[in-house]
Amino acid sequence: MTTTKRRSAATARAGARRSPCPVACALDLVGDRWTLLIVRDLLGGKKRYGDFLASSEKIPTNILADRLKRLEREGLICSVPYRLHPPRVEYQLTPEGRALGRAVEALARWGTRHFPGTTRTVWPGAASDEPEPTEP
Amino acid sequence: MTTTKRRSAATARAGARRSPCPVACALDLVGDRWTLLIVRDLLGGKKRYGDFLASSEKIPTNILADRLKRLEREGLICSVPYRLHPPRVEYQLTPEGRALGRAVEALARWGTRHFPGTTRTVWPGAASDEPEPTEP
Repeated sequence: MTTTKRRSAATARAGARRSPCPVACALDLVGDRWTLLIVRDLLGGKKRYGDFLASSEKIPTNILADRLKRLEREGLICSVPYRLHPPRVEYQLTPEGRALGRAVEALARWGTRHFPGTTRTVWPGAASDEPEPTEP
Repeated sequence: MTTTKRRSAATARAGARRSPCPVACALDLVGDRWTLLIVRDLLGGKKRYGDFLASSEKIPTNILADRLKRLEREGLICSVPYRLHPPRVEYQLTPEGRALGRAVEALARWGTRHFPGTTRTVWPGAASDEPEPTEP
């Protein structure tokens, strides 16, 4: 989906917004217990459906499928086929999706302080606008 | 509740965590469509139950009551009586709750970019660690 089409879609949905506040709009998209964990995993280099399922939070498959679809529809991730038979895709963050790393980073910093004993797996460098490292 | 007691409570709950990731723990607390809007409102100077209800997102009363209780239990807000008969309280962010302003700020910046036409009501200054301004 092109940036222009995504912008048009976002503008078209403007009438359905619960408020003109960007925080509220952002939360309508990523305000749940799971979506930003998928973004965290993508920032950390995970790419495949099975990789996300393997994370320690054990995301349910129906929620994972739903969130991946929503993130792709919103232009925050894109899928790249890596096998044709059977068809399989890898996911990667678009620049707009990668920009959510700032929010993940803020929650990671806050969570580390508020919940003693937690251990970060996403580091500041991963939340930058740098391109993702290539797979080894 | 003292900081020590809150820390003890957070440590006690450690066994119930779905993962040791601070992002996951943070989302278990604020990962929904409403909680960070209450934090946004508090950062913006709102203090009373009716103030939060008046925000344009029209938070349902049962959700507002639940989230205020949870935020207070977690030591992110505190309530200060301002009338005894009938009893009424004002809410204010603790330093730990105020620190969530970084996440609200990140979502506000991202939302402003992703959703054309949205208008910010929380500004960078409100997300600092400075003490709240006194009421006029």
